[in-house]
Amino acid sequence: MFYSPRDLRFHLYEVIQADQLTQLPRFADHDRTSFDMVLDAAGQISETLLRPLLTVMDREEPQLVDGKIRVHPQMGAIIRRFGDDGWINAPFDYDEGGQQLPATIMNAATFIFGAANYSSSVFPFLTTGAANLLRSFGSKELVDWFTPMMYAGRWQGTMALTEPDAGSSLSDMITAAEPTDVPGQYRIRGQKIYISAGDHDACENVVHLMLAKIKGGPAGAKGISLFAVPQKRLSTWGQRTTDTLSTTNQLVDNDVQTAGMYHKMGYKGAPIAHLMIGSGEGAIGYLVGEPHQGLRYMFQMMNEARVGVGMNAVSIGTAAYYASLAYARERPQGRPIAEKVTGSPQVPIIRHADVRRMLLFQKSVLEGSLGLLLQCSYYADVAHAGDGVAAQNAAILLDLLTPIAKSYPSEMGCLTTSAAVQILGGAGYTTDFPVEQFYREARIHPIHEGTTGIHGLDLLGRKVTLHGGKGVQLLIAEMQKAMTEATTYPALSQLASQLGEAINRLTKVTTYLLSLAADPAVFLADATLYLEFFGIVTLAWQWLRQATVAQAALPTAQGDNQAFYNGKLMAARYFYEYELVKTLSLAQRLQSTDHLTLDMHSDWF
Amino acid sequence: MFYSPRDLRFHLYEVIQADQLTQLPRFADHDRTSFDMVLDAAGQISETLLRPLLTVMDREEPQLVDGKIRVHPQMGAIIRRFGDDGWINAPFDYDEGGQQLPATIMNAATFIFGAANYSSSVFPFLTTGAANLLRSFGSKELVDWFTPMMYAGRWQGTMALTEPDAGSSLSDMITAAEPTDVPGQYRIRGQKIYISAGDHDACENVVHLMLAKIKGGPAGAKGISLFAVPQKRLSTWGQRTTDTLSTTNQLVDNDVQTAGMYHKMGYKGAPIAHLMIGSGEGAIGYLVGEPHQGLRYMFQMMNEARVGVGMNAVSIGTAAYYASLAYARERPQGRPIAEKVTGSPQVPIIRHADVRRMLLFQKSVLEGSLGLLLQCSYYADVAHAGDGVAAQNAAILLDLLTPIAKSYPSEMGCLTTSAAVQILGGAGYTTDFPVEQFYREARIHPIHEGTTGIHGLDLLGRKVTLHGGKGVQLLIAEMQKAMTEATTYPALSQLASQLGEAINRLTKVTTYLLSLAADPAVFLADATLYLEFFGIVTLAWQWLRQATVAQAALPTAQGDNQAFYNGKLMAARYFYEYELVKTLSLAQRLQSTDHLTLDMHSDWF
Repeated sequence: MFYSPRDLRFHLYEVIQADQLTQLPRFADHDRTSFDMVLDAAGQISETLLRPLLTVMDREEPQLVDGKIRVHPQMGAIIRRFGDDGWINAPFDYDEGGQQLPATIMNAATFIFGAANYSSSVFPFLTTGAANLLRSFGSKELVDWFTPMMYAGRWQGTMALTEPDAGSSLSDMITAAEPTDVPGQYRIRGQKIYISAGDHDACENVVHLMLAKIKGGPAGAKGISLFAVPQKRLSTWGQRTTDTLSTTNQLVDNDVQTAGMYHKMGYKGAPIAHLMIGSGEGAIGYLVGEPHQGLRYMFQMMNEARVGVGMNAVSIGTAAYYASLAYARERPQGRPIAEKVTGSPQVPIIRHADVRRMLLFQKSVLEGSLGLLLQCSYYADVAHAGDGVAAQNAAILLDLLTPIAKSYPSEMGCLTTSAAVQILGGAGYTTDFPVEQFYREARIHPIHEGTTGIHGLDLLGRKVTLHGGKGVQLLIAEMQKAMTEATTYPALSQLASQLGEAINRLTKVTTYLLSLAADPAVFLADATLYLEFFGIVTLAWQWLRQATVAQAALPTAQGDNQAFYNGKLMAARYFYEYELVKTLSLAQRLQSTDHLTLDMHSDWF
Repeated sequence: MFYSPRDLRFHLYEVIQADQLTQLPRFADHDRTSFDMVLDAAGQISETLLRPLLTVMDREEPQLVDGKIRVHPQMGAIIRRFGDDGWINAPFDYDEGGQQLPATIMNAATFIFGAANYSSSVFPFLTTGAANLLRSFGSKELVDWFTPMMYAGRWQGTMALTEPDAGSSLSDMITAAEPTDVPGQYRIRGQKIYISAGDHDACENVVHLMLAKIKGGPAGAKGISLFAVPQKRLSTWGQRTTDTLSTTNQLVDNDVQTAGMYHKMGYKGAPIAHLMIGSGEGAIGYLVGEPHQGLRYMFQMMNEARVGVGMNAVSIGTAAYYASLAYARERPQGRPIAEKVTGSPQVPIIRHADVRRMLLFQKSVLEGSLGLLLQCSYYADVAHAGDGVAAQNAAILLDLLTPIAKSYPSEMGCLTTSAAVQILGGAGYTTDFPVEQFYREARIHPIHEGTTGIHGLDLLGRKVTLHGGKGVQLLIAEMQKAMTEATTYPALSQLASQLGEAINRLTKVTTYLLSLAADPAVFLADATLYLEFFGIVTLAWQWLRQATVAQAALPTAQGDNQAFYNGKLMAARYFYEYELVKTLSLAQRLQSTDHLTLDMHSDWF
């Protein structure tokens, strides 16, 4: 087992009540049965296709041979299967061939795929993200040209942002676009690095959704435009607008070269390319939407990608958790402290308090994060498919929570996979068990789609005050609602009051930091710690909601369900006792007047 | 640069005042000049021999071919060089060919070797550890047979403890020893796993210092004896007691087979073997010391090995720190928050507060840990070579601090190397830079030589109350001495008073926990957290001492020295502001009455 279907359904149907989404017109054709079919299908593909390749895709890395990246030979079939089964465009409109599947259910499926085999799962969903940019902002012509082949899993989609001198500082990019005689077509010249699935032989073509600067445009971020830059272009484009599926014999080279492939610590099955664009006659790029709006377009999609990264982090952590749980139940070693009798048989290590602590740590962080990410997905669905105040509020909450939903699971995923390694001890450090791979794979998430530091700045420097601070108000109202519901159960009154204290602490710290905003350097110096602090309080809210549902269900629960709800209540207690308590120390530091990271000189290190 | 010679000398001569060791008769021939020569020699070998192989030893792992492990072809020359230069027996007596080098200086050299190339550095020092067991507890005959070849770097030494069903629970080992007709010689049969350098082709032979149970002896830990079990034995042993260096042509197989080699996440250059002992006629094992005293002997040496593991953790962390520091100084990206002007050139990322925070985190953890480890080494020297109350107290302090000196740097090394990766961002995740290797290598240390959980139990369950609690009393007295010295500088009065508060917190938590001792399961449930808590307070003590020395030296310091001392004062402030503050949360949890890790059921996960 690499994830728990029971737990996933608990989140979806008992806590978030995702079936309520079917009351929105966009999702009216769905019901819980169809959602379950989607989740079962995801589980089935994961078990039969993805999981068996987990280890081999790590051991047999992609290779760059004669300028072309070769990936695992089964990747082509996997991507095509995702295309054939309709996963790549599942969230999109019926008239695009999509299924209008809620993001909540789509992300639940993403969670399953990522837990089975993270590297393999990124190929199709990068295509989904790229296609979503095209369909959201591109002309009908562009959509018709590119998306059928992408939805079929025959063409790979990518997001091409980073350059050698423009990573966190995207506005410094220099990839240039020069107009051609054909309206909407530009010659692109530049370099892009760290492009996930940026070149490989499992698809027939790659379509890069690429940021570049049109010559003569505004400086900095305001001059960035979005282009579709295919690795190969159709020689007859411009004449035709219908089915591209039969026209791949007309593909010609578009001057996008693979200059290199990065070798990485983990996440090895997915190739990351260094691309040289237009080093010959110039690559043709097709302008998506209006000029100079590229960063805005990209960041609208980025929020979804960021929730996706958080979800991937939870996926990997969850796979490691269940691997360490299985080991802890089977591995005999030592005896309970209170019963040390020489000669008595050894007990499974799950009997030791410290092992349980490491398991509860993983469980509480991962299931709390999964709840948050599905909640954010639910907000995304309401924001996109709902209307009125509900949709507005959902959008505001999603905006506020996105840096947390991306960063908390990513940062903590490094620690939960580390706990999984520790439970296995020496065995966990060897390649005989998968936990060392999960430990290596988890480390990418605090880096890509915006580093944790960037998200700290986003949260404190932007999101907290966006919409006049309404996001924090709405969130605290949600937290108070959860407290009110919890306090109907005496067993939860202590957790509820602890959340109340944490909210007060959060408010106090936020007010203090905002009082420093006139000096942005001081204001934002510890933004990363603020992000951690805010993340812990957010998870405590999630756990109070989960605990309330569990407490309500427990009296009538039987057998496995009883154990499940008891486990939820223990994990909630764990989170409050061992994790929420960390806000004490964080609050103390965040309110300190010693701005030592600003006082430090570079040559004093 | 992979370590700072300046910082190492600061610890040795300005804080710990290691030159005082030369007042002890054992070290009377040494002086600061000879110490410096040793450190310079270590630096020179490290730069020219070890460091150049850092990457290749990770990429080209050892291979098991026809039952024999092949390591990097240069390892033989490296081990021999360590032998020729006298490193393997440097701490031992003159009449054994040693140099009576203090452990303090030896461990400082270990720090340098480990920072250069951890995997390569373990071979010679495993031999040192094994030889030390032989010379401390073995007969003159055994010492004469084995140690000359070990000191020469021609025979590898190992510690062979772990078995498939006996890791943390050593008393469950089943490897059996049966007496032969020759007194002191036994037939050994069993399995040992995770044996570092347990078989390889860079030496001519391997001598395992192996734990096994003599048939008919007491059950459990009390029946464990120590044996020297060579991979090959001399056919003529028993007849001769002199120089073995010329007799290797008489080596015959001793029925110790290499059944497997573990592939690991990192630390790949050093092979870890699975050994089958005596599956044929039985391997000859030579009893070391008295029967049934094996565990006691082993644990006497283990304290030193554990300080060594802590040192290795600091080594790897330090190498990662300097790699990330160099990158942060060179990599331009973004602009200072307070000066965001489009078009202005990007600044090196070390200008960003969050990058400085991650650098200060590494610096404060690593230099604080290095100070502690050298202090422990100093206590070891005084305990072994001093006399009277001073030697007794040093031994008691070393006993108390060993679980912390092993575990704090090991656990934190995973986090400091992670910060190094984060500073490099995407680049840090690739194999283009060494930080990802350091991240993988660091993860072994919380596991080997006793997991962190085991050390938590050792500290709270044994060391705190050992010698009637005198260790804690002595340590607090040392801390108070440091506070008194610090308060002569007004600039340090705040740190001193914060340490005072932390000591009170430590005392309060310890008293509370000891009040639970009647119920060992409850008493020890959070021993790992107590270890973390104690470790942070211990590091704060170390930092106050370093800050006091820096504050005293600063007024007259010039140039680089001025920057160095300013850096020390900032790192001390960092440790108190960002790390010591964590004891607030830890103390709250440690005094909680919710024993949820005991209440949790195994089937609730």
